[in-house]
Amino acid sequence: MSKRFRHVALVGKHQARGIRPILEEIADFVTDLGLDVSLERETAENTGITDFEGLTNEELGAQCDLAIVVGGDGTMLGFARDMARQGLPLVGINQGRLGFITDISIEHYREALAPMLAGDYEMEQRAMLEGSVLRDGESIFEGLALNDVVVSRGATAAMVELRVDVGDEFVANLRADGVIIASPTGSTAYALSAGGPILHPSIAGWLLVPIASHALSNRPIVLPDHGEVRLQIVAGRDASVNFDMQSLASLLHGDLITVRRSAHQIRFLHPKGWSYYATLRRKLRWYEGVS
Amino acid sequence: MSKRFRHVALVGKHQARGIRPILEEIADFVTDLGLDVSLERETAENTGITDFEGLTNEELGAQCDLAIVVGGDGTMLGFARDMARQGLPLVGINQGRLGFITDISIEHYREALAPMLAGDYEMEQRAMLEGSVLRDGESIFEGLALNDVVVSRGATAAMVELRVDVGDEFVANLRADGVIIASPTGSTAYALSAGGPILHPSIAGWLLVPIASHALSNRPIVLPDHGEVRLQIVAGRDASVNFDMQSLASLLHGDLITVRRSAHQIRFLHPKGWSYYATLRRKLRWYEGVS
Amino acid sequence: MSKRFRHVALVGKHQARGIRPILEEIADFVTDLGLDVSLERETAENTGITDFEGLTNEELGAQCDLAIVVGGDGTMLGFARDMARQGLPLVGINQGRLGFITDISIEHYREALAPMLAGDYEMEQRAMLEGSVLRDGESIFEGLALNDVVVSRGATAAMVELRVDVGDEFVANLRADGVIIASPTGSTAYALSAGGPILHPSIAGWLLVPIASHALSNRPIVLPDHGEVRLQIVAGRDASVNFDMQSLASLLHGDLITVRRSAHQIRFLHPKGWSYYATLRRKLRWYEGVS
Amino acid sequence: MSKRFRHVALVGKHQARGIRPILEEIADFVTDLGLDVSLERETAENTGITDFEGLTNEELGAQCDLAIVVGGDGTMLGFARDMARQGLPLVGINQGRLGFITDISIEHYREALAPMLAGDYEMEQRAMLEGSVLRDGESIFEGLALNDVVVSRGATAAMVELRVDVGDEFVANLRADGVIIASPTGSTAYALSAGGPILHPSIAGWLLVPIASHALSNRPIVLPDHGEVRLQIVAGRDASVNFDMQSLASLLHGDLITVRRSAHQIRFLHPKGWSYYATLRRKLRWYEGVS
Repeated sequence: MSKRFRHVALVGKHQARGIRPILEEIADFVTDLGLDVSLERETAENTGITDFEGLTNEELGAQCDLAIVVGGDGTMLGFARDMARQGLPLVGINQGRLGFITDISIEHYREALAPMLAGDYEMEQRAMLEGSVLRDGESIFEGLALNDVVVSRGATAAMVELRVDVGDEFVANLRADGVIIASPTGSTAYALSAGGPILHPSIAGWLLVPIASHALSNRPIVLPDHGEVRLQIVAGRDASVNFDMQSLASLLHGDLITVRRSAHQIRFLHPKGWSYYATLRRKLRWYEGVS
Repeated sequence: MSKRFRHVALVGKHQARGIRPILEEIADFVTDLGLDVSLERETAENTGITDFEGLTNEELGAQCDLAIVVGGDGTMLGFARDMARQGLPLVGINQGRLGFITDISIEHYREALAPMLAGDYEMEQRAMLEGSVLRDGESIFEGLALNDVVVSRGATAAMVELRVDVGDEFVANLRADGVIIASPTGSTAYALSAGGPILHPSIAGWLLVPIASHALSNRPIVLPDHGEVRLQIVAGRDASVNFDMQSLASLLHGDLITVRRSAHQIRFLHPKGWSYYATLRRKLRWYEGVS
Repeated sequence: MSKRFRHVALVGKHQARGIRPILEEIADFVTDLGLDVSLERETAENTGITDFEGLTNEELGAQCDLAIVVGGDGTMLGFARDMARQGLPLVGINQGRLGFITDISIEHYREALAPMLAGDYEMEQRAMLEGSVLRDGESIFEGLALNDVVVSRGATAAMVELRVDVGDEFVANLRADGVIIASPTGSTAYALSAGGPILHPSIAGWLLVPIASHALSNRPIVLPDHGEVRLQIVAGRDASVNFDMQSLASLLHGDLITVRRSAHQIRFLHPKGWSYYATLRRKLRWYEGVS
Repeated sequence: MSKRFRHVALVGKHQARGIRPILEEIADFVTDLGLDVSLERETAENTGITDFEGLTNEELGAQCDLAIVVGGDGTMLGFARDMARQGLPLVGINQGRLGFITDISIEHYREALAPMLAGDYEMEQRAMLEGSVLRDGESIFEGLALNDVVVSRGATAAMVELRVDVGDEFVANLRADGVIIASPTGSTAYALSAGGPILHPSIAGWLLVPIASHALSNRPIVLPDHGEVRLQIVAGRDASVNFDMQSLASLLHGDLITVRRSAHQIRFLHPKGWSYYATLRRKLRWYEGVS
């Protein structure tokens, strides 16, 4: 049995109508179990709920010991990234099709949450990428990514050419539509579409996946997560970089994207008995044998 | 033995210095064999060669019965497309690394060309794609492509969603980085990088290759080349379309890209004994066994 | 409106219990519509049905003008191959999960069959592969395949090396787990698992797919279906060849597998409005957009 | 500067004629530098060299502090596996095309070896797989693999179905031609042909690669290297298992293949300045940019 929680941060950034009654219901459910509840400030403002205090992320981090996020994987990833420095463990309640991370359905949240709030849960840690874009030696962009850092060719350019270095070693020049540096969390997102493998979350590595590489032998590589990955724009006009969709366009030749492991980790909590592989089976419709 | 030629159009759009003496040498070589030579107008202007008449593409089509193109595959594809309506057969002389189409090296062009000009050659026909972009029912762009028609997401958009129809049948909605409609000629270009198969030039079909498709089951498909392929923008801001790199950006939701087989075919001539598979072996470094 | 049928061959090779009442019900349904019904001989013997005559395949071919096959894709492919010379058009009724070819469910066969028997249907033709294995110039095996011809390494051999020729042209030596020559019908079967594209049934071509090729550039190729494909065993002990799972093991160095287009085609009938792409969407769970 | 060596084990299992003079030359070169030299016993017997003592692997392990292996990657992997328990660091001298591991050419071995023997080298450690096959709870096969453990379908079976578990978690049932569990070392061997990514040798993980999986979503996975991987034969006659090509055929339903990290690691030494990525660039012909 792990630690029992006492003060929950409740988050629901989803813009869909109808989230207010759901959040109120969850807040009441948690309160009834004897825990305090605060709302993430933007959530409070959007829904107009006033029975619970709206707090900034910093205040949530200082006062709460658990965050419950209502929404899909996208909502969760965004909040997790924003709260990376606060270090709150996170639980996801999903209103729609279950995600890779948000795997408690709105229909069954009570049975799932009650034991978790009492300290009975599975915890997993996810590594984050942090990086910057250097132009003429000056940082012009900084970002944090839980899924991936992606460099893409401009829409009307035939390709982007990137020089790839890892630590102090030269890897290769890639001529491609782009390149993805994905965390294990991101390995089941865009990187999978681009032909990458799945990385178990406990693997201490990043995935480098070229997108539509000119050379057929430039296959996905799993790189160690210590040491910096550097991508330098060698050719290709109007390339852009995205850190989990926060993007910087119009990269110039010579611009250098550096990516390294963030000092912060995200902790996701799941109901007891949760299994990463069960999530893969469900999301990817893997065959489970005839039972 | 096929037909003997009598009037050669000479083309060298390459911007590299030093192309003038090479063109003059080839022109003299062809003249010495008793054929007439005219220069493509732009080639004449760029090089300053005045010993041979500079003609427009229409004039070349009317007066010549063969075109010799000096340059790589890119130069050849551009000229072939421009001359599609004139129907001249084409021969490529390559100054650099041999291409898929331009497979006579500058070092050996004499031995290769002499019998070809006398009517001893292999001819192959290549199908072309033609298409248009319709907005609110009006055509806003028309294009011709020897390699491919490519629809791509905007650089900072997560994806483009396209509805695909072939003839009067709905195929699927694709959510991806983009989609490639490639001719057999284009199957060894961008489509190959995106995971497509190689299509022998005699196959009467197009290749539809999704780029980084969200759904893993949206695999490349070989479609019949009769009947129109239609791609409609359903979602994704700032998508663009390219016909062999002639591009139209900022596509809007509802824009419809239609692609069909052009009435024109390109004829490439190769030295006797030429083999498509030998070209693949050379370009893709296929193993030929221990000899 | 196409031709109206008058004499149906009924086939149900499935070994599952309970097929007898289903076949009797279908036979009665067809009889009630005024058509004659005969049973395929093995079906008659296995089920013990005696109300309808049991005929050999040759007799079915001579007397009937349509065959209704009850079972899955495997049953259909086997019967279609056996009946290739008889040329009967085929309809499939599926008791389980709908297949690529057998797409009428047992629940709705009445609504589907009635108009088809009256001549209202979609017909599609599928090409077949035929081939032989030559040892020292003598044929030691002949086969017919609707899906594919597959050469595989022996289970404990590291690889098989095959010399591939098409028509009178050398293609390459392949070192791989094996190679698949698939028809368009077979392109959605084993070839798809091995990384091949989907070929629309109207494409006049075969798919050559290397299985786990040592060279990363030996990608799937679509070959013209005229001209013979030849695969010669160059190295690798104990390789085998399968024509739609009819197999010949223990191939020797020098053995030559030849594959060409069969003079016979299979005709499958589908309910009016049937679409090949709809079948792909259903089987491969393609996204159809938000409706 | 690392440790200086004093007693070299010399190995040359290659059956090619002409290895005797090469081994004698290398032995003399090493002796001239002041080190002792012993021969691996089989090498001594095959070549007939008697100037240096022929020792068993155990004796080599006890007396020597470095092994020099003359041959390709295959020779090196076999010897490395046999010597796993002895723990000698290994250097490879390659007579043919340089390998992933044996990257010192016979032409330049003097310049490469001299500083290495004096203690100036790069060392890298490679993890090994060890496993067993259990039938009815009894171990019937034990093996060690530096590259991979591979389960394959029988040559005339359509597939093998395997239940995959990792640690105490169920992963999925795979229906495929087979499955590869590869170490980072094996990721550039068979697993790469089957569509797997490259794993940097420092990654603490195994690669699970399905071969021609029926389900398109059964993609390669990188698994943590702690905890046992278990593959159980669920269906498919005559499957076999290979540990680096030591094979056990005729597996039965219910047979359980277990794989875990060996307590032994292999240490390869390379010339100072050696880079793993440079080896990849050379072997896979990666583009290095225009210099």
